[in-house]
Amino acid sequence: MRYELHYWPGIQGRGEFVRLALEDAGADYVDVARKPARDGGGPRALARMLEELAPPPFAPPVLVAGRLVLAQTANILYFLGPALGLAREDEGARLWVNQLQLTIADLVNEAHDTHHPISSGLYYEDQKAEANAAAAHFRHERIPKYLGYFERILEGGGESGAGLAGEVVTYADLSLFQVMRGLEYAFPNAMRALAPKIGNVLMLCRRVEQRPRLAAYLASPRRIPFNEDGIFRHYPELDAA
Amino acid sequence: MRYELHYWPGIQGRGEFVRLALEDAGADYVDVARKPARDGGGPRALARMLEELAPPPFAPPVLVAGRLVLAQTANILYFLGPALGLAREDEGARLWVNQLQLTIADLVNEAHDTHHPISSGLYYEDQKAEANAAAAHFRHERIPKYLGYFERILEGGGESGAGLAGEVVTYADLSLFQVMRGLEYAFPNAMRALAPKIGNVLMLCRRVEQRPRLAAYLASPRRIPFNEDGIFRHYPELDAA
Repeated sequence: MRYELHYWPGIQGRGEFVRLALEDAGADYVDVARKPARDGGGPRALARMLEELAPPPFAPPVLVAGRLVLAQTANILYFLGPALGLAREDEGARLWVNQLQLTIADLVNEAHDTHHPISSGLYYEDQKAEANAAAAHFRHERIPKYLGYFERILEGGGESGAGLAGEVVTYADLSLFQVMRGLEYAFPNAMRALAPKIGNVLMLCRRVEQRPRLAAYLASPRRIPFNEDGIFRHYPELDAA
Repeated sequence: MRYELHYWPGIQGRGEFVRLALEDAGADYVDVARKPARDGGGPRALARMLEELAPPPFAPPVLVAGRLVLAQTANILYFLGPALGLAREDEGARLWVNQLQLTIADLVNEAHDTHHPISSGLYYEDQKAEANAAAAHFRHERIPKYLGYFERILEGGGESGAGLAGEVVTYADLSLFQVMRGLEYAFPNAMRALAPKIGNVLMLCRRVEQRPRLAAYLASPRRIPFNEDGIFRHYPELDAA
């Protein structure tokens, strides 16, 4: 099956959680909006495509898999998980990985809102003071709470080398890796201070990034660098020591 | 199967999306934290319970169904949907309803953040000015965008009397009803102004609330009234005409 991914071509964003799963599995996929404009790529073609897809997505990422047209990151990954070998088939296991993914999605939303607390329709520069206050709370309360939760799961797992679902790697582990790298990019001071308390999470991330296909992807030009148009933005004033 | 729901007893909150599905289906369930404290109810017992459940939930609502312990509203509803007759069994249909539910969840998060734009760890009174700015953007941009999206789906459905998934009612339709009543409670002026543009959404909500078991629930003391501890809060200053 050749998958089509439709997502903004200039950022990792929420599309990256899907890209990581496809890349880790060595899946056959086209990142449509990243093709040259003459071949149907680019943000304008994407915006047009989003209007035409049925059933209509509210926002990208969108995955087209044969006749299925899926949006919402966690929904796409729920579908892809077993097909890509990144989640077990049985419903109990799938629901647990889905639950983890939705908790990661909540963390991602909160990370985004640190630089856009008033409105995603305004520029960061128009809400800097509010972003400063929001980021302080996020660094001091929310990052430790979320990452402490994942640390507790990994500690409870017992099995050495296991992931959040007790298996080697599921898509939720790839997503936790992505969030960790994003948080380290955006809030290096806060994440350095927290590191001693989340040893298992850090170890899981290292194991994830050493997976051969993922390592090759991360070193390739297909991996868009973190930047200040994405979810995780490095504004030093939002990471005051 | 007797289900156990674990959720804060004093608010509708995210638990209400699960309650509506259980009530509409006439399911056998216990709303554990709403029992008297002597029978294990109350917020303190809930907080203790959340620490003890395995695998650990990040936050309520939690549904216990036999050996399954599920958290994250959309995840719980994904599981319950076919069992309660509120989603078809086949994967394509389930994924579409899940996608709708996740889009509704995004709207719910944004509605919450209007009164807590800086931090959910601060009181509303400590972020009133920021809430005012956030709510204005939410009313003018986000509510019309989300509800316009659902209106477009219902228009496209063609089938008279159909819901978001083209069937009579799925749990996503119940959730859209809940969000609409919440938005009407929190932002009556904004919602009155928008009403002429979302006729199909309004009609769907009326059909949902006339379903006999749901109507009985809504008229019963089991339905907690909207209040200013929940997601949808009526602060008149956030709904300036």
